[in-house]
Amino acid sequence: MQALRHLPFEPLEFANVDHHRALRCGFPEVIFCPGKTPHQVGEIFRRLADVGGNVLATRADAAQVEAVRSLFPQAVHHEAARCITLRQQEAPPTNGVIGLVTAGTSDLPVIEEAKVTCEIMDQRVKSFYDVGVAGIHRLLAHSQTLREMRVVVVAAGMEGALASVVGGLVEAPVIAIPTSVGYGASFNGLAPLLTMLNSCATGVAVVNIDNGFSAGYLAAIINRLGEPQSE
Amino acid sequence: MQALRHLPFEPLEFANVDHHRALRCGFPEVIFCPGKTPHQVGEIFRRLADVGGNVLATRADAAQVEAVRSLFPQAVHHEAARCITLRQQEAPPTNGVIGLVTAGTSDLPVIEEAKVTCEIMDQRVKSFYDVGVAGIHRLLAHSQTLREMRVVVVAAGMEGALASVVGGLVEAPVIAIPTSVGYGASFNGLAPLLTMLNSCATGVAVVNIDNGFSAGYLAAIINRLGEPQSE
Amino acid sequence: MQALRHLPFEPLEFANVDHHRALRCGFPEVIFCPGKTPHQVGEIFRRLADVGGNVLATRADAAQVEAVRSLFPQAVHHEAARCITLRQQEAPPTNGVIGLVTAGTSDLPVIEEAKVTCEIMDQRVKSFYDVGVAGIHRLLAHSQTLREMRVVVVAAGMEGALASVVGGLVEAPVIAIPTSVGYGASFNGLAPLLTMLNSCATGVAVVNIDNGFSAGYLAAIINRLGEPQSE
Amino acid sequence: MQALRHLPFEPLEFANVDHHRALRCGFPEVIFCPGKTPHQVGEIFRRLADVGGNVLATRADAAQVEAVRSLFPQAVHHEAARCITLRQQEAPPTNGVIGLVTAGTSDLPVIEEAKVTCEIMDQRVKSFYDVGVAGIHRLLAHSQTLREMRVVVVAAGMEGALASVVGGLVEAPVIAIPTSVGYGASFNGLAPLLTMLNSCATGVAVVNIDNGFSAGYLAAIINRLGEPQSE
Amino acid sequence: MQALRHLPFEPLEFANVDHHRALRCGFPEVIFCPGKTPHQVGEIFRRLADVGGNVLATRADAAQVEAVRSLFPQAVHHEAARCITLRQQEAPPTNGVIGLVTAGTSDLPVIEEAKVTCEIMDQRVKSFYDVGVAGIHRLLAHSQTLREMRVVVVAAGMEGALASVVGGLVEAPVIAIPTSVGYGASFNGLAPLLTMLNSCATGVAVVNIDNGFSAGYLAAIINRLGEPQSE
Amino acid sequence: MQALRHLPFEPLEFANVDHHRALRCGFPEVIFCPGKTPHQVGEIFRRLADVGGNVLATRADAAQVEAVRSLFPQAVHHEAARCITLRQQEAPPTNGVIGLVTAGTSDLPVIEEAKVTCEIMDQRVKSFYDVGVAGIHRLLAHSQTLREMRVVVVAAGMEGALASVVGGLVEAPVIAIPTSVGYGASFNGLAPLLTMLNSCATGVAVVNIDNGFSAGYLAAIINRLGEPQSE
Amino acid sequence: MQALRHLPFEPLEFANVDHHRALRCGFPEVIFCPGKTPHQVGEIFRRLADVGGNVLATRADAAQVEAVRSLFPQAVHHEAARCITLRQQEAPPTNGVIGLVTAGTSDLPVIEEAKVTCEIMDQRVKSFYDVGVAGIHRLLAHSQTLREMRVVVVAAGMEGALASVVGGLVEAPVIAIPTSVGYGASFNGLAPLLTMLNSCATGVAVVNIDNGFSAGYLAAIINRLGEPQSE
Amino acid sequence: MQALRHLPFEPLEFANVDHHRALRCGFPEVIFCPGKTPHQVGEIFRRLADVGGNVLATRADAAQVEAVRSLFPQAVHHEAARCITLRQQEAPPTNGVIGLVTAGTSDLPVIEEAKVTCEIMDQRVKSFYDVGVAGIHRLLAHSQTLREMRVVVVAAGMEGALASVVGGLVEAPVIAIPTSVGYGASFNGLAPLLTMLNSCATGVAVVNIDNGFSAGYLAAIINRLGEPQSE
Repeated sequence: MQALRHLPFEPLEFANVDHHRALRCGFPEVIFCPGKTPHQVGEIFRRLADVGGNVLATRADAAQVEAVRSLFPQAVHHEAARCITLRQQEAPPTNGVIGLVTAGTSDLPVIEEAKVTCEIMDQRVKSFYDVGVAGIHRLLAHSQTLREMRVVVVAAGMEGALASVVGGLVEAPVIAIPTSVGYGASFNGLAPLLTMLNSCATGVAVVNIDNGFSAGYLAAIINRLGEPQSE
Repeated sequence: MQALRHLPFEPLEFANVDHHRALRCGFPEVIFCPGKTPHQVGEIFRRLADVGGNVLATRADAAQVEAVRSLFPQAVHHEAARCITLRQQEAPPTNGVIGLVTAGTSDLPVIEEAKVTCEIMDQRVKSFYDVGVAGIHRLLAHSQTLREMRVVVVAAGMEGALASVVGGLVEAPVIAIPTSVGYGASFNGLAPLLTMLNSCATGVAVVNIDNGFSAGYLAAIINRLGEPQSE
Repeated sequence: MQALRHLPFEPLEFANVDHHRALRCGFPEVIFCPGKTPHQVGEIFRRLADVGGNVLATRADAAQVEAVRSLFPQAVHHEAARCITLRQQEAPPTNGVIGLVTAGTSDLPVIEEAKVTCEIMDQRVKSFYDVGVAGIHRLLAHSQTLREMRVVVVAAGMEGALASVVGGLVEAPVIAIPTSVGYGASFNGLAPLLTMLNSCATGVAVVNIDNGFSAGYLAAIINRLGEPQSE
Repeated sequence: MQALRHLPFEPLEFANVDHHRALRCGFPEVIFCPGKTPHQVGEIFRRLADVGGNVLATRADAAQVEAVRSLFPQAVHHEAARCITLRQQEAPPTNGVIGLVTAGTSDLPVIEEAKVTCEIMDQRVKSFYDVGVAGIHRLLAHSQTLREMRVVVVAAGMEGALASVVGGLVEAPVIAIPTSVGYGASFNGLAPLLTMLNSCATGVAVVNIDNGFSAGYLAAIINRLGEPQSE
Repeated sequence: MQALRHLPFEPLEFANVDHHRALRCGFPEVIFCPGKTPHQVGEIFRRLADVGGNVLATRADAAQVEAVRSLFPQAVHHEAARCITLRQQEAPPTNGVIGLVTAGTSDLPVIEEAKVTCEIMDQRVKSFYDVGVAGIHRLLAHSQTLREMRVVVVAAGMEGALASVVGGLVEAPVIAIPTSVGYGASFNGLAPLLTMLNSCATGVAVVNIDNGFSAGYLAAIINRLGEPQSE
Repeated sequence: MQALRHLPFEPLEFANVDHHRALRCGFPEVIFCPGKTPHQVGEIFRRLADVGGNVLATRADAAQVEAVRSLFPQAVHHEAARCITLRQQEAPPTNGVIGLVTAGTSDLPVIEEAKVTCEIMDQRVKSFYDVGVAGIHRLLAHSQTLREMRVVVVAAGMEGALASVVGGLVEAPVIAIPTSVGYGASFNGLAPLLTMLNSCATGVAVVNIDNGFSAGYLAAIINRLGEPQSE
Repeated sequence: MQALRHLPFEPLEFANVDHHRALRCGFPEVIFCPGKTPHQVGEIFRRLADVGGNVLATRADAAQVEAVRSLFPQAVHHEAARCITLRQQEAPPTNGVIGLVTAGTSDLPVIEEAKVTCEIMDQRVKSFYDVGVAGIHRLLAHSQTLREMRVVVVAAGMEGALASVVGGLVEAPVIAIPTSVGYGASFNGLAPLLTMLNSCATGVAVVNIDNGFSAGYLAAIINRLGEPQSE
Repeated sequence: MQALRHLPFEPLEFANVDHHRALRCGFPEVIFCPGKTPHQVGEIFRRLADVGGNVLATRADAAQVEAVRSLFPQAVHHEAARCITLRQQEAPPTNGVIGLVTAGTSDLPVIEEAKVTCEIMDQRVKSFYDVGVAGIHRLLAHSQTLREMRVVVVAAGMEGALASVVGGLVEAPVIAIPTSVGYGASFNGLAPLLTMLNSCATGVAVVNIDNGFSAGYLAAIINRLGEPQSE
C-alpha cells in the first residue's frame, strides 16, 4: 500500500500524468484523446515522452495530431488507425505471433488501432483481413496459419459471427472486438457485442465496441507470457 | 373485397374459426394453444377438423393435449415439438427437400415444431442437428448435402452464428429461427435474433424467437414453389 | 471441403474479392459501400466487373458513385435507391412476379433498393406504393392483383402493421422490411421490426431495418424456384 | 386550492381512502389489488362501499376475492376479468355504444377487464372478438357496425397491428391496449406497445400493457360526453 | 366492403392521395412532411386543396414551406409549430374548450403543433404553459379553470410527471404527449413516455413522443362528441 | 493508506467480515442476505454482533430469520420490511426528522426497509403514506408538515411522479426510491427510475429500485449533519 | 395550500417566472437554457435578476450567452462549465467543504457545472480531478483529505466505478454523476448510470447523466445542514 | 480443410459428440447441461469418458448429476459450482497461478465454476473472496499477492467495479465475469456487464454473465502459455 501510494504521478491542472507502468515494465504510456483539447493532448504527450519510454495516443483527431506533431515532429501518425506513436525505445519483436482477423473492409480502422498498439508494444503480428463468415472458404483457406498464432484478435461488426467460428478453429486465446460497422438492428455494435459474449466457442473474451486498443494491449500481454524471457 | 367479405368463418363465443385457407389450398388449419383453455382448444380443434382437412395445434400443454385426444383419439401428440396433429388428407411428399439445421441439442423443441409443421404440410425434410459453429467441421462434413436442399431452416440460440455460416454455404433461401437457448447476455433470445437480422450472408430472413411453426410454414410454401405442379 | 477451399477469391490489400457466386449461377456480385473509401469501392467494382457478370453496389454516396462512374461510364446510378448497377449479361425476366409494397411515400428509398436488386437479378416486379393500413381501402383495392404475386416484399416504417395485413391477404411468402421511417417511439425502426417479427400472419419473415437489398435478393431466389427451368 | 385541500379522504393505517370522485360524479371507487393483503383489500373495499356508490376491484386473486365476498356476499366476481364489482346505484345505460375489439382469444382477460369497468360505469358496450388482422375479412365483416360505435377500445398482443387498422376504419376515438399475449420478440407486450404508439392512423391513443381498466374508464368518460345530459 | 373499396383516392406516382375523410366529415386532410421531397409535398398539398377542404401539413422544413407557399401564397406558416395550414372552409368554434398544458418552455413546438391542429379543426382551445410539477403552485393556481376544460392535452418532457398530476385534478379525458425535451436518462423521450403510460391517474392515454398532431386530432374528435350537433 | 490497510476485518471461509464502520462511528453493521445460506447469514451476524454494535440484516427470508433468531432470540424481525435488527447500543433520537413518503399501499415493504434502517441508526422519522399524485389533495394536506422535515425519502412505483412533486414542495434534500410496484410498461421499476432521474425538481437524488436500505442510510447520514453534535 | 397558491410567479408569454425560492432562502434562480431562444433566455434572466438575488443559467450556448451579456455585461460566463452567473448578493462561504471528484480529464465540463453551482450558492469546494480507479494510487494519495469533506460529488463516465470506491472510503454522503464520456457499450452514459445505481457502497445517490447542476445543488443544501446557522 | 473435415465426431441421435480437442491436447471434454434430458447428459458423458480424457459437465441439476453418477460413481459432484468432473488423466499443476477474485459471498457459485474448470485443466489457483470495492482495504491487503498471479479472474455482480480496480492494480491479463447477483437496476447482470466492458483499466476482457466456465477455460489456456513446456 505504501508502495502504491508513492507511485509517481505528475499533477497537471487538468490531469494526473501517470508514469508507473512505463517505469516498471517498458509499457507505453497511452493517451485516450476524445474529450481533451489539443493543448491538453499535447501537454500530456510531452510529459509522458519526457520520461523516455514509448508513447501512444489513440482516437486522435486532426487538431490533436497537429498539436502533438508540432511538439514531436518525429511522432508517427497512423491515419487509418487514428493513432500517434512516438518510439523512443527499441526492443526485438516477440517470437509468438498475434493474429489480427477482420470480417470486412469496414472494420479496418478498429483492427489497425489494435495493430498499432501491438507494434508499439514490440509484438509480431499477422493480418487476416476480410474473411467474414458469409464466404467461409476465405477463412478456411487460412485455417492452418491461424492455428499457429499464439493469440488471436477478431474484429467484426454486423452479426459478429466470425469470433465464434475462429474460436472453434484455434486453441489460442481469442480476443473479440465488436465493431459499430452495420446499421439498423446492429444498434451501433450491440448486435456483434451480444453475439461475441454468447459465443459457444471456448476461449473467447470480449472488449468494448470498437476498442482496438484494449484488444491489442491484452493480446500483447498474453503473447508476452509465452516468450522465453516472460516475467 | 366482396369475395373477401364472404370468406367462411364460424363464430364461436370465444373465437372466429376460420376455414378459408383449408378450403382453398389444402393447408392445415392451425391453433396456437397458449392462453386458451383446454375446452377452447378442444372446441376449436373440433370445428377445424369437421371441415375435413389436416389440423395442427402448437405449444399444447398436457391439459390441452388431453382435451384434444379425448375428442380425437387418433390425433398424434408430438412430445418434443409440443404439437398435436390430425391427418385427414394424404398427399405425396414433395420432391424438394427442406433442410432442418440446429446448433445444439437444446434447440430440439424448436426445430421439431418446424419439422412437424413441414410434415403435416406434406414436405420432405432432412435433419442436420448439433452442428454449431464452435466445431465447424461437423457442419462442413454435411456441406454437400446441405447444398442440395431447396430451402433451409436454421435454429440456433446462444450467439446464433450458425445462420450466417449456413447462409454463406448454400444458395437456397435460409429461414433463421433464433432460440431462447442460452443465459445471461442472450437476454432470452435477443442475442441470436440480432445476430440473424444482421447476417452478412445473403438470402437469410428471420422469424420470431422460438417460432418453429412459422419457419416451417414459410419453408413449406417456398418449397412448394419448386414443385412441378406448383401454383 | 476441398472444393470449398479452392473457390476463387482475389486478394486485394483491403479486401478478398469473391467470385464464386457469379461464376456458378449468374448472380450479381454485390458491394456494400458504407465504410469503404471511394478508391476501394472503385477498385472492388472493377475486379468484380472484370469477371464478366452483372455488378451491384448498394448505399453508394456521391463520391463512391463518382469513383465507379469514372471507371465505368455505362454504369447506372439509381438515385432514389442509392445503388449503382452494371449490366453485362442479359437474361429474360421471370414469369413469376415479385410484388413490392410500401406503407408510405417515405419508404421509397428502401423499396427502390429492393427493386433495383430484383431487376439486376432479372426478376419481373410490380409496385404497390403508399398503401398503408391507415387507409386500408387503398390496399384492398389491389388485393386481387396482390394475390397473383409469387413472392411479396413489404416495406413499412412507423408501426409496420402492413406486413401482417398483407400476410393475411396472400398465400405467397412475404419478406418484410422494417424501415427507419418514423420518430419518437419508432426508435429508428425498432417498432416496425418488432411488429413484423411478432406477426400473427403465417408466411412472413423479416430482414434487417432498411435492408432493401437483402429482401430483394431473397425474393429473387424464392421467385426463381417457381420458374420452369429452376434448379 | 382550499376546496382541493378539504376533499374528503379517510386515513387508514395503510391507505388514504379517497371519496371525492364517487361523491361528485357517481363514478365508482376503484381498488387496484396487487401488492395489498386480502385484509387490506377487504378493509378498503368496505370503506368505499360505506359511502354508497358502486365499487370496483381489479386484478383480484382468489384470497382477495374471498376477503371481499365474506364482507359483501352480493359482490360479483368476474372470473375472466379478475374483477369484483359491487353495484349499489343503478343508472340507465348510455345511448352511445363502446366497441370492444380483440385480436385473439388470448386477449380476453384484458378486454373483459375493460368491459366490467364500462358496465359498472353504466356504459352500453358491444364486443368484436377474435378479429385480428391475419384474417382481415373477419374484421371487415363488421366494419359497418364498428363505424357506429362512439368510442372503440382495441386490445391486441403479438404485433398489435389491429389498432391501426381499426383506427383507419372508424372516425371515433380509439383507445388501444397492448397486451402481453405473445412470446419471444413480443418482450412481454413491448412490441404491440410500440406498434400502437407509432400508429399511422389518426385518433389512436394508448394505455399501459394489459391495462383494461384504464382503457375502459377512459372510453366511458369519452362516451359520456356524447350523451344528451353530458356535463 | 364494397363501399370501402370505392372510397376515392387519387394515385400519384409517389402517393395515393386520400380524400374520403374530407369528403365525409369536413376533417382536414393532413400531410406528414418528413421523408418527402419539396416537390412531393407541394404536389400532394395541391391535390388535397383542390377538393376544397382545409389542409394541414406538419413537420414542414423551410424548403417544403417554400414549395407550398409558391403554390398557395395564402397558406399560413406556423413557425413554432412547424406547420402549414390552408383554410378553405369556415366553421364556428366549438363550445367546449380543449386545455393545452405544458411543463416547460421547451415543450412549446410540440404543444403548438397540437394547437394548430385543433384550430384548423375549429376547436376552441386554452393554453396553460410552463406549469411543470417542480413548482406545483403554478399549476394549482389554474386548477379551477383546468376543471372546466372538456378535454385536456398535456405535453411534458424530462420526467413527464405533469400528466399524472393533471389527470388527478380533472375529470376530463387527458391526452398525454411525452416530449423529447431533456437529456441523459430521458433517452430522447423514453422517460416521459414510460411515466405517462404508467400513470396512476385514471383517464390518461398516451400518444407517440412529440406527436402534437395526433394528440390535437384526438382531442378534437373527443371534444366534438360533447357539442350539441355531435354525430 | 497504511491506516486503511490495517483496518480490521475478520476473514471467514466465505466472507471478510468488516468492522471498521462500527468501530469508528457507531454505525450499524449490515448484512445483505440474498444469495447467502442461512448458515452464512447466521455466522456473519454473530461475528458482527460480537463487536458490540447494532446489527441490521436486510432482505432476510424465513430460513435466514430462523438462523439468526436461533442465535439471538432477542433480535427483532420486521416482517413487512424483511429485516432483522439487533440493538446493543442505545442513543437518543435525532432532533431533525426524516420524512418517509410513499405513493401507494404497495410501496410499504420498501419504505419500511428505509424506516427500520433509519431507526436502528437512531433517527427520528415521520411517515406520509399513500399520498400519490393521482389524488394530490392527500399530499397537499400534509405540505406544511413535509416542509419541516430535514430530509425526505420518497418511494414510488408505477410512474414515480411523486418524487418530483415533493421535490418542488420542500427545500430539504429528497432521496427518491423507485419501486418495482406496477406492471407492463413499468418494466420492473425502470419507469419510475427514469422518472426520478429526470426530475425537473432540484434537490432530488436517486437510489436503486426497491433499495429502501440505501435511501434510509443516506437520509440518516444527511440528517446527522444537522444535529448540534454533528461531526 | 393557500400560501402555496399565492406564491409569486410572473407570467411571460412563454414562461412563468418563479421567484419563491429566491425570496425565501437566498437560493439562486436557475435557467436551464436548452430549447429556449436567446431572446427567451435573456428575458427570463432579466426578470429573475430584477428580484435582486443571484442568477445562474446552465447549458448556455454562444447565442444565449451573448443575449445575457448584452443585458448584463457584469454577468460571468464560465466557459468550461457552459454556465452564466450573476452575483448580486454576497455571503461568506461555508465552513464545510464539498469535495468534487472526477475520474478523467474528459469529465471536466460536468464537474465544472457542479462547481459553478456550488460557488454561486456560497459553498466552499475542493477539487480532486483525474483520479479514476485504473490508477487507484492517485485516489488513495488523497484519501485523508477526501475524508474531511462534508459532502462529496463524484463525476465519472466510462464504467463509473469511481463512485463506489469513493463511497467505500468516506463516511460523507456521496452524490454520483454518471457522465456521457465513453463510447460503444457506454451507451451515452447508461453504463456508469447503472454502475452508480448498483453501488454496493452505502451512502451513494445518483443524479441524471451529465447533470452537474443538480449534483452541485443537492450537495449545497446538504452541506448547509452542517453549518452552525443551518435551518 | 481436409484435415478439418475428418476430425472425429460421434453422431448420436441428439448430438454430435466431439472428440478432437481431447485427442489433440488433453483438454477436457465439456458438457453444458441445461436443456438436455438426464438421459442425454448421461449418454454424452459416457461417450466422452470412453475416449479416456477428463470430463467436465457444467450447470448440472440434481437429475443430471444422478444420471451421471449412476454411470460413473467415481465422478465428483461440486455442489456450489454445479459441476461434475471425472478425472481419468493426471498432470502436474502449473507453476503459474490463476487468481480467482470475487466481490461478495453471493458470487461464489460463479467463481467456483471457474475454479473447478481450472482445476480439471491442471491449473494452480488462489482465491481472493469477498474483497469488493465498498471496503477497498480488504482488496488492498492482498495487492502484493495479487500482483504475483499470472492471470486473474474477477467475478462481481451489482455494479461490477471490482474488475476495473483489479485491472489497475495488476499487470496480468484480467478476465472479468459479470454476475447476476443484484436486483433492480442490475437488470440480471446487465449493469456489471456494461461496467466491465467500459473498464478504463487496460488488460481486461469480459465473458458472458455468470459464465464461470468460460472465464476459467480462458484463464487456463493463457496461464499455460507461461509454462516452460508451453506450445
